Amino acid sequence: MVDEKSLDAIFRQARTHNGFSGPVSDAQLREVYELMKWGPTTMNTQPMRIVFVRSQEAKDRLKPALSPGNLDKTMAAPVTAIIAYDLRFWEYLPRTFPNRPQAIDGFKGDDKLAANECTAFRNGSLQGAYFIIAARALGLDCGPMSGFDNARVDAAFFPDGRWKSNFLCNLGRGDPAKVFPRNPRLSFEEACWIA
Amino acid sequence: MVDEKSLDAIFRQARTHNGFSGPVSDAQLREVYELMKWGPTTMNTQPMRIVFVRSQEAKDRLKPALSPGNLDKTMAAPVTAIIAYDLRFWEYLPRTFPNRPQAIDGFKGDDKLAANECTAFRNGSLQGAYFIIAARALGLDCGPMSGFDNARVDAAFFPDGRWKSNFLCNLGRGDPAKVFPRNPRLSFEEACWIA
Repeated sequence: MVDEKSLDAIFRQARTHNGFSGPVSDAQLREVYELMKWGPTTMNTQPMRIVFVRSQEAKDRLKPALSPGNLDKTMAAPVTAIIAYDLRFWEYLPRTFPNRPQAIDGFKGDDKLAANECTAFRNGSLQGAYFIIAARALGLDCGPMSGFDNARVDAAFFPDGRWKSNFLCNLGRGDPAKVFPRNPRLSFEEACWIA
Repeated sequence: MVDEKSLDAIFRQARTHNGFSGPVSDAQLREVYELMKWGPTTMNTQPMRIVFVRSQEAKDRLKPALSPGNLDKTMAAPVTAIIAYDLRFWEYLPRTFPNRPQAIDGFKGDDKLAANECTAFRNGSLQGAYFIIAARALGLDCGPMSGFDNARVDAAFFPDGRWKSNFLCNLGRGDPAKVFPRNPRLSFEEACWIA
């Protein structure tokens, strides 16, 4: 069981941030990955990939893909994670799912492309959420965003088409003064049904 | 910051379980939702929906959709959550995203169906991961599964087509003796790139 203070840190008091300061070290980024990697995925497929955009060159490449509302805060953030997924995630299966060596055969072939993309998107998104929770748990504030042009990010960062962008997440120390008022959540009765 | 014991409970020591005992109360299910609901989603869209399969009638409806490897453990679990998403999630936006009342217009119309399904799948999956982490944090063990026939679950539980199944998650007190050996994770260098 996790104590109340920790539940606050990862869920109840954690907020989506809009203003960030640094520094964020490479060691911190690695620490977040080394924690979030333990989250479960279908057949341990782990399709999520991340580009940590930190250099001015990489920021300049990202910039044209951002929607106006996300532009300034992202350019000013110490790091922006491009949460992506690998369409050929299954190539790692002989090592990552050794208990069923023939599993890889279920992913090979052009007739599997649509199912593979579904698996990559589902599990890459699960892992994206693990990433947000892990970052918060380790003291980094997050600013996840869907407001950008995925095709432009893909053309700029993944020209060979193997990785696809999913969402973006600014990282750093959040400025509480720039957080928006918290919006309401659906009730249990609206979202859930006990059958 | 979250202490080491809590990081173990939600990530490092948490495992996907295959044998479960109860009881799991309605109050516990509600508690998990009331925690995970705070996780962030695009424009606070919150598309995830959950059917908690608990009654024999509901188990019988779920049963024909399960793959052989997931059948017995799921029929024996105290509760199985069908993690789903609502394709018309955006109808709640005037209440859940009140700061931009015109936001709902961006989701209306047949030409928005594909983009809406993408938003529902991405964010419904993020919320599915929040659900797993929240359940673990509150002392429930999880057995998430993709091995089932989504179309059959949808026909059995969501015949009007508004909700779509995403993945399943058994819930209860896990039996450590039935946990499989832990499979390896990708290294930071394989999954991440600092640009």
